[in-house]
This record gives sequence, structure tokens and C-alpha cells, in this order.
Amino acid sequence: MKRTYIEELSKHQGEEVTLKGWLYHKRSSGKIKFLVMRDGTGIVQGVLVKGAASDEVFDCFDKLTQESSFVMKGKAKKEDRAPGGYEIEVSDIEIVSVAQDYPITPKEHGVEFLMDRRHLWLRSSRQHAVLRIRHEIIRAIREFFDSRGFLLLDAPIFTPAACEGTSTLFETDYFDLGKAYLTQSGQLYGEAGAMAFGKVYVFGPTFRAEKSKTRRHLTEFWMVEPEVAYFDLNDDMDLAEEFLEHIVQSVLKNRMPELKTLERNTEFLENVKRPLPRITYDEAVDILKRKGVNFEWGNDFGGSDETVISEQFDRPVMVHRYPAKIKAFYMKRDPQNSDLALALDVLAPEGYGEIIGGSQREDDLDILTQRIREHSLPQDAFEWYLDLRRYGSVPHAGFGLGVERTVGWICGLDHVRETIPFARMIYRLTP
Amino acid sequence: MKRTYIEELSKHQGEEVTLKGWLYHKRSSGKIKFLVMRDGTGIVQGVLVKGAASDEVFDCFDKLTQESSFVMKGKAKKEDRAPGGYEIEVSDIEIVSVAQDYPITPKEHGVEFLMDRRHLWLRSSRQHAVLRIRHEIIRAIREFFDSRGFLLLDAPIFTPAACEGTSTLFETDYFDLGKAYLTQSGQLYGEAGAMAFGKVYVFGPTFRAEKSKTRRHLTEFWMVEPEVAYFDLNDDMDLAEEFLEHIVQSVLKNRMPELKTLERNTEFLENVKRPLPRITYDEAVDILKRKGVNFEWGNDFGGSDETVISEQFDRPVMVHRYPAKIKAFYMKRDPQNSDLALALDVLAPEGYGEIIGGSQREDDLDILTQRIREHSLPQDAFEWYLDLRRYGSVPHAGFGLGVERTVGWICGLDHVRETIPFARMIYRLTP
Repeated sequence: MKRTYIEELSKHQGEEVTLKGWLYHKRSSGKIKFLVMRDGTGIVQGVLVKGAASDEVFDCFDKLTQESSFVMKGKAKKEDRAPGGYEIEVSDIEIVSVAQDYPITPKEHGVEFLMDRRHLWLRSSRQHAVLRIRHEIIRAIREFFDSRGFLLLDAPIFTPAACEGTSTLFETDYFDLGKAYLTQSGQLYGEAGAMAFGKVYVFGPTFRAEKSKTRRHLTEFWMVEPEVAYFDLNDDMDLAEEFLEHIVQSVLKNRMPELKTLERNTEFLENVKRPLPRITYDEAVDILKRKGVNFEWGNDFGGSDETVISEQFDRPVMVHRYPAKIKAFYMKRDPQNSDLALALDVLAPEGYGEIIGGSQREDDLDILTQRIREHSLPQDAFEWYLDLRRYGSVPHAGFGLGVERTVGWICGLDHVRETIPFARMIYRLTP
Repeated sequence: MKRTYIEELSKHQGEEVTLKGWLYHKRSSGKIKFLVMRDGTGIVQGVLVKGAASDEVFDCFDKLTQESSFVMKGKAKKEDRAPGGYEIEVSDIEIVSVAQDYPITPKEHGVEFLMDRRHLWLRSSRQHAVLRIRHEIIRAIREFFDSRGFLLLDAPIFTPAACEGTSTLFETDYFDLGKAYLTQSGQLYGEAGAMAFGKVYVFGPTFRAEKSKTRRHLTEFWMVEPEVAYFDLNDDMDLAEEFLEHIVQSVLKNRMPELKTLERNTEFLENVKRPLPRITYDEAVDILKRKGVNFEWGNDFGGSDETVISEQFDRPVMVHRYPAKIKAFYMKRDPQNSDLALALDVLAPEGYGEIIGGSQREDDLDILTQRIREHSLPQDAFEWYLDLRRYGSVPHAGFGLGVERTVGWICGLDHVRETIPFARMIYRLTP
């Protein structure tokens, strides 16, 4: 008999169905027994009534333990009080495999205990909600760019040169060519793509060997980086706000049950609609001073500074025009004030900090060559990048959005470790 | 004035438009001059007529060189004889940046010359066609799984243990935890995901430090790996053929102009419809023997063997039930003949070789533990994987499809180096 998934039960009301899954939990109430099955697409309650099901089926009830796998046959019945809205009048059960002493029980467990058993912890309803929202965010990101004519440009993971110092780079031996470094950003390749295809997006894993043990750092994390030819900083901000609106509204539209499972207050998420507030770095510094924060102009914002700034807004805020000396060599200077870079950060509300960083890029060959020298970077390694300014240079801009920080913000999580199936951190490489 | 992309010209017929792009080529014909612009979304011909455009605009024609960037204004006119079907009656031109001696000229260049300038080579129409088809293949893959309720499960890139020998693994120092290895496959993590979510797909870059200098090997390549709980080998083959049909038919539907640019004979691609032929390893060996190939039962097929087998079919062929000793430890044995593994390979036609490899997985705890011992693998590192058989083990199966080999086959390319924006091979780590 054809298998039915729990999420499809609404199409099979009144029919005899075969479900395949695992025992979520069970309980008895007098002569009636309840088996709650999960199959990955949902949960449903099987009801065993003495007389309606055979003695063998009743015996199965006793044998089944949490996470045991079994096949359940019976009639699907609408039942509004049941989780998922359906119930199965069980006629037959086949045990596939009995689980002995499943380690994750309904009692509280420490986070390290759960992270050590991440391959099993993934089965819990909370982790389901987070990873389904992650999937929706990634789907919405691709839909956004695909429907706007951006070409997907998969940038290489192995890169030859250490762009901005090797201290936070992972390296590996690469045959007779010396060392290869794992990418920290596909942006430079995205720029080559923008000159070829007009508008592109890079989307893949990136790596940072930072010795940071915070709730916001992973050693491997996914980043999406659009890059557009003939874009200036304003165009870049327009794109960023339209993009954030699309992501958040897609999650609200398609993953509300999961947000409910996470008990997420969606008030600030509902607010993520264009236009988003835009303030300069100078205005952000004014906010800090007004709030009594001891902050010196010219420094970069720390996590607590970002929190103070973003608390002034009920939606993400775009901060632009940062001091050039705290920003990357490839950013274009503001023609109005050459101490400033045409940079852009987007800070999420509720203390979630930076989720987007971007800029207009330097498109002048001589100035960019000069910057590479000032930063003591190996010009040889950047000749190909300089070629983009030699042959048909145009104004262009882009940004990067960190997937895990975005998932953490939208789900309202304290720590990024739950935002990716198998987190990698300074002290964790397993399972 | 708002910018128009060339691909949108059909919506702006008869209107004054502003186009931003690069010079593809130019020519004169008496008093008329033609500027062909590319902007990444298409190409269009600008027409300059003495009298209609100013002398300054005519001067620009002389200054513009191949790949110079410029802005072109004028009226969009339907013109069936023009490439793209439209033409611009140019009224104004603004030069953005003049390119001096663009190195890739219309004359023939060697492949290494072009690969060294990959960041510029991407601008050519042939590379556009290949990378747009790559994008469509990836879009179709995600659409296939997303619309069928599969959860996207991003597997980790850093893995702790060397699964099947370290000789083809890239390794990196990982803080105080010793070495981390770059993933060769996300399958084992996909299995954990299948037990949690029922059906998942892993999709990301994978790495192989093989010292192979062939037309089919990259050191980093993208792989998609679905995994489904309660699936057997037959279900797996059903999924694989539906999947291949979806990918190929999507490309035929959405990227026919690009296939034409590549002069691809699409006859065998049109044939990729269910059902695909299914033969056993034994039947494949019979084919080789009939064709006079000197092949010994029990060996794995080499590239030339695959070509002989696939030449017997006008569409991809599925080969199943291979000798267990040439297949991975985690594959389930055939209950009818324990010398065989419930493995599956799909060979593309026209000599493109294996594009899919998969199997039903061993779901018995004792047998799998025994296999790990037989393969001298470190059992410690696999305890989490064995947990999937301890707690609610179920039959399950999956497969992996290599993106670059699929792109190479669908585009009809001789070498995989053109199937990814920036190829990484044993002798190439740049640009």
C-alpha cells in the first residue's frame, strides 16, 4: 500500500492510509491508547480502541519506546482537538526497530549534552522549526535574486592569496602550488561576475578561523553576496531593504506555525517593510553620545554599541558612510568627504547586531592600486582584480548577508549554534 | 533617467531608454555606425546616423574600444534582423571608462591563456551560455526538492574523521582539536537528517585532493545529495529518474537559446523522460563482453567501459547491484545475493560517464559495526552514525549528483573546467 506522509493527511480524509515514522510519545486513557507518530513532515495521533484493533496491535503499544520506528495503518479522521488536526483509527501496526534508552528524554538537558547528540537533537520540534525557517530563508533569498535576473556565481572556496592577513584564515596544502586558503568572502569574484553578467549573487559557505568564543561566531557559515554593475551606494541600500523585506515577509507568510513553536514575538518582524531608516555613521555616533555611551568618533561599533543604536528603531536600521580607516581597502571613498567610505551596515533590531555589510567599490585603477600598497597587500595576487578596473571599469556595489545571524534574528535565538544543522565552533568539530 | 536592462527592451518599444554596459564590438557602413553593447543580460545594437546624433556622439564611436564601458541613450525600436530583436536609435553616449588593449580578442586563444584570464573570459557569449545553464540546473534541482517537501540540510564542510583513508582529503589545522578534513560528501549527515525530517537534501561544495589530471576532475565541486527514510533501492531509482527528467526538461524549456549558442545537439536530451532503462551490473558486464571488451567480473567500470555501456542507450542508463567489494562500507547488501551491494550508478549518454551514484544504506546495527571493523575504520568516529541504527533505524536510501559533470553533459563540453565560474584543479588555484 502506498505510503502517505503526515503533512498530506488532509487529502486523505476518511481513507485507509499507511504512515511510516517514529514514536514521538504515547499514553493510555482507560481502554484507549494513543500513539503519537512523527514522520519528519508532521505529527499525528494514532488511536487504539480495544475491539477495533487486534491483540497483536495492542501488544505493539507496550513494545514501542520513544523514537522506535514503526508503520501504522488505519483510517484518517478529521479531529480538530488532535495536534495537526487529524487522527488515525489504527487497524494495524508493524514495528520496524525498537529504540533502547533514547538519550534525549522530555526532561531538561544541558546544551553541550544536546550539541554532542546533534544528530538526534535534530528530531525535536524546536530544532525542526529552526531548520525549516532556515530553509525558507535560503529559498526566499534565491527566489529574490533568481526572479530579478541575477546570475548565481559560485565563487571558489580555495583562494590563492591571503587578502587581509592570514591570522583568521584556514589553510591547506595544495599540491605543488603551496598553500590554499579557505574563502572568507566571494566578493572579489562577485565583482568579476558583475562586470560579465551585470548582476550576480554568490552564495556559499565561508570560513573564519577567529578565536572568538561568542554566541555570534561560527568557524563555517553561509553567506549570500549580491554584486551589481552600475550601482552606487544608494542603489545598494535600495536593494538591501527590498531584499530584507522579501526574506522576512516570506518567513511570516510561509513559516508562521514554526515561529509559533519558537514562541517568537513577530511584532518587529512585521515591521520589516520598505523604507527602512537610513542614518549616517555620524548620526549613529550622536545616538550613542545622547545615550551616555563613551564612544570615540573613528572607532568601529562594538556589539553593545550596535544594540544601543538599534534599540532606537522598531525595524532594521541602515548605517552608512563609515570612517574609511576602519573599513576594507576596496571600498570607495565618499566624494564629499574622503575620510569616509561609502560603506553600509544593516543592524537588526532587538540587539541582534549586524546582519548585512556592504559598500560601493573603488572603481578607479590608480586609487585602488594605491590602496593595495597602503595596506601592504601583495599586488601580484590582485592583478586580476585590478584588471576589472583596467577593462571597462564601472561604478558598482554589493553587500553580504550572513545566513546564520539572519536565522538567529528571525527565530529569536540566543546563540547561532542552533541555526545550522551541524555547527562548527572553535571548540566543536563533532558530530 | 531610469536604467533599462537589455533583456527588458521588449517592454519599452518606442520609448527613450538609457542602457548601461560595455562595448561588444562596433562597425561602420557608410554614414551609419553600429555599436553593439552587452550589459550582462543581453546584447543590442546602437545605430548612429549622421544628423540624428551630434558630432560629440560620433566622436565617442572612435574612442570606444572593445570592453569599454559606456551609457547609451536613444529610442528602442523593434528590428527583427538585429541580434536580440531590438535596435537603439542613439541620441546620446557617455563614455564611462575606455579599455586599453583588452587581452581577449576575437582571434583564437589557447585554453590556458583563457583560464589565466577567467575573470575576463566570463564575459564571452559561450561562457555566458554555460553559466546560465549551470544556474538553471541548480535552480531546477532546488525547485525539485523544495516542491516535494525535502528539507535542505546544509552538511558541515569541516569533518573530524577521515572516513575512507586520508590520501584524497584536504586537511587544515583546527585550533586545539587537531586536524579538520574538508568534506567529500555530506551523505552521512544527510542520513541523520532523513531520520529527523523524513526526506532531506544536502547541497554544497565538496572536495577531493585527487592527483588526477583528467577532463573530469576538479578539486572542489558541488554535489547535491538527497536522502529519504523508508526508501529502498527501487524507490531510490524512481526518485533519480524523476529528478533527472526534471533537470533536463527544465533546461530545455528555459535555456534553449543558450543550448543553441553552444551548438548542442539536443536529441538525446529530449529523450530524458521516465522510465529510464535499468540494468544490473551483471547485464552491464554482458554488454562489455558482447562488445569484445576484456573485462573481469568484480572490477569497477573505467571511463571507457562506461562509454561502451552507455553507447547502447539513447538516454541515461541506471546500473544497479554492484559487487559489494568495490563499493562503500555503508551500502546494504542484496538479500538475494550477499556478494552484491544495493548500489546504483547512472551513466549519462554520449560518453559523459557517471553523473549519479547512490545506494540503499545498511540499516542493521550489528552488520554496520562489523563493516566498519572490516574496513579498519575508527569506530569511535562513527558512533554518532551508528546511533542512527540504535534509535529507530529504518530502511533508507539516497544518491549524489555531481553538478559540474551534469553541466558538462547537458552543455556538451569536453572538459569540466568551463562548468564552474573559477575552476580549481591540481595545477590551478588562480585567479
